[in-house]
Amino acid sequence: MTSLKNDLFIRTIFKQPVDRTPIWMMRQAGRYLPEYRAIREKAGSFLNLCTNPELACEVTLQPLERYKFDAAILFSDILTIPDAMGLGLYFIEGEGPKFERPISSAEDIKKLPIPDPVQELKYVVDAVSLIRKNLQGRVPLIGFSGSPWTLATYMVEGGSSKSFQKVKSLMYEQPVLMHLLLDKIAQSVSHYLNAQIEAGAQAVMLFDTWGGVLSTEDYQEFSLDYAKRIRQSLNTNRDGQAIPTILFSKGGGQWLKTMADSGYDALGLDWQTDMRLAREQIGDKVALQGNMDPVMLYSNPEAIRNKIAEILSKFGSGSGHVFNLGHGILPDVDPEHVKAMVDAVHELSPQYHCGN
Amino acid sequence: MTSLKNDLFIRTIFKQPVDRTPIWMMRQAGRYLPEYRAIREKAGSFLNLCTNPELACEVTLQPLERYKFDAAILFSDILTIPDAMGLGLYFIEGEGPKFERPISSAEDIKKLPIPDPVQELKYVVDAVSLIRKNLQGRVPLIGFSGSPWTLATYMVEGGSSKSFQKVKSLMYEQPVLMHLLLDKIAQSVSHYLNAQIEAGAQAVMLFDTWGGVLSTEDYQEFSLDYAKRIRQSLNTNRDGQAIPTILFSKGGGQWLKTMADSGYDALGLDWQTDMRLAREQIGDKVALQGNMDPVMLYSNPEAIRNKIAEILSKFGSGSGHVFNLGHGILPDVDPEHVKAMVDAVHELSPQYHCGN
Repeated sequence: MTSLKNDLFIRTIFKQPVDRTPIWMMRQAGRYLPEYRAIREKAGSFLNLCTNPELACEVTLQPLERYKFDAAILFSDILTIPDAMGLGLYFIEGEGPKFERPISSAEDIKKLPIPDPVQELKYVVDAVSLIRKNLQGRVPLIGFSGSPWTLATYMVEGGSSKSFQKVKSLMYEQPVLMHLLLDKIAQSVSHYLNAQIEAGAQAVMLFDTWGGVLSTEDYQEFSLDYAKRIRQSLNTNRDGQAIPTILFSKGGGQWLKTMADSGYDALGLDWQTDMRLAREQIGDKVALQGNMDPVMLYSNPEAIRNKIAEILSKFGSGSGHVFNLGHGILPDVDPEHVKAMVDAVHELSPQYHCGN
Repeated sequence: MTSLKNDLFIRTIFKQPVDRTPIWMMRQAGRYLPEYRAIREKAGSFLNLCTNPELACEVTLQPLERYKFDAAILFSDILTIPDAMGLGLYFIEGEGPKFERPISSAEDIKKLPIPDPVQELKYVVDAVSLIRKNLQGRVPLIGFSGSPWTLATYMVEGGSSKSFQKVKSLMYEQPVLMHLLLDKIAQSVSHYLNAQIEAGAQAVMLFDTWGGVLSTEDYQEFSLDYAKRIRQSLNTNRDGQAIPTILFSKGGGQWLKTMADSGYDALGLDWQTDMRLAREQIGDKVALQGNMDPVMLYSNPEAIRNKIAEILSKFGSGSGHVFNLGHGILPDVDPEHVKAMVDAVHELSPQYHCGN
């Protein structure tokens, strides 16, 4: 970690002493920033932006110019892997992601390839290298992937879903086939994250956006178990050190104890979960990341500051809290409100780290 | 309860001995039934169906002709109260409910009337009377209302929502005004449920469909506290006996302990919550209702039966479990699968009530 000018985020994930709580924000490179919208327009489409390493690098760095964030996160989409598997990702404005060739038979699953990220996802690997180089050690770079379960939902449903009828029917009626699908995705995710680490990612996060639509048992069997396997398969960073890892299962507040045993160094919390109760349950086993309601950023700076004071005090003293939202920032938030959030964390958090 | 030929549901809510687990199903009068679709077509619109007591009665009774359900539930919509307050409820096919005049200012909230259900919601009260009469004591009739928080989300957003930006901004920025709104809705809900009880409802359920989008603290302050007040305001049934009450906060699995202290006799569980862990947490304080994933009904009868066996065994021995789905049945389920579910509960549950 010697090459990092700001290693607050990484030290916090490993629960080492720090002098304030680090902060970054899910979707920090995004539509709420006018400079992002300008590049997005230049790119012509969201997918063009994702697949162009120079532009992906540019938007990844944008929020760091405006705000004192303690980490950068690769600008990409969680559906790059299914796209590389041949499903044909496309976006219709205002409708969310879709696949031209969703999974619809056992045959589809059996013939599904496991992409070599250095080949089929070269644009992501190149973006990671470029971002890492351009960051010049200012803050660590977080790589990421969607979780196998979450990717499977899109691959089987053909896009976003409300009831997850198709993917759950596959799971309920043909669990063996479902496991074959998840196993292939998990292998792909492992390769993908290791390629990002090799290219310079200094931490990785697994986004299990739809883990929370499963029953407690199915969450374990069809989501968490694959997250564990992925964790076990991750390589050390380029300097041979352990890579910090974060698992975020949205809607998983009931399952924190099991998640804390999954091998990840930190758990992402959605805003529904109480930070105090979470820490009471988890103790010092893992770090916690989160968890302000993204809608809070529509409020006035004073209300934002009060909410941040509350969340910081709920985590309480000591290292192990990475401040973040409980989900990605919403598209039309006022950038000044983000500044109010970052400032509040910088100003209000040192009191919880006095012992260092 | 002497007039009831089947009081399994009511005895179970009060945790009195029974010889098998009762079952009913959220949205049991609904689109999956061809006989429902026929009446719905005759009515011309969903709202016409809700506002016509004879038709509402007819569809309420339909599922009881097909299945051995242990309760009937009033056919109605949760948005009847805001409609009676003057917001102008309407439906666009495939888009969900909308309001012509959503709440958009402090003035709107201040001038919001508290409807007299006997006047402005006469069609609901009449439907309850008619259903009760036509049931002839076969099974108890459940009345219901949306929770104040859930109704407020629709009233402020103007319909369904994904991020709940408007209603949460009101809550975060103007909590006093939000409380005024919730207080008015809570008073309206109390009057409404008492009118249903007076007309013959033999149990009532509060549907807090969107409680789960709140933080732990906000859930307490803006949802659960109003549910408590409503509980306290409920009258006894027409025979002067305690009215059985059920609270269902979807997504509230983390908060069961607090919910169990809210005065309701039973808690509805969504499918994400584990029935065994829920009972371990709650002990014998309240009854539990639920909680099979509605998507499970797309599976084959054997898989459905296995899942039911699992849920029954998770609750374990003794009274206090009302079998149900973890949310409403989905529109295009095969009615034969519902039969498989009902039969499985009838056949598999007696073993858990041997002690009686």
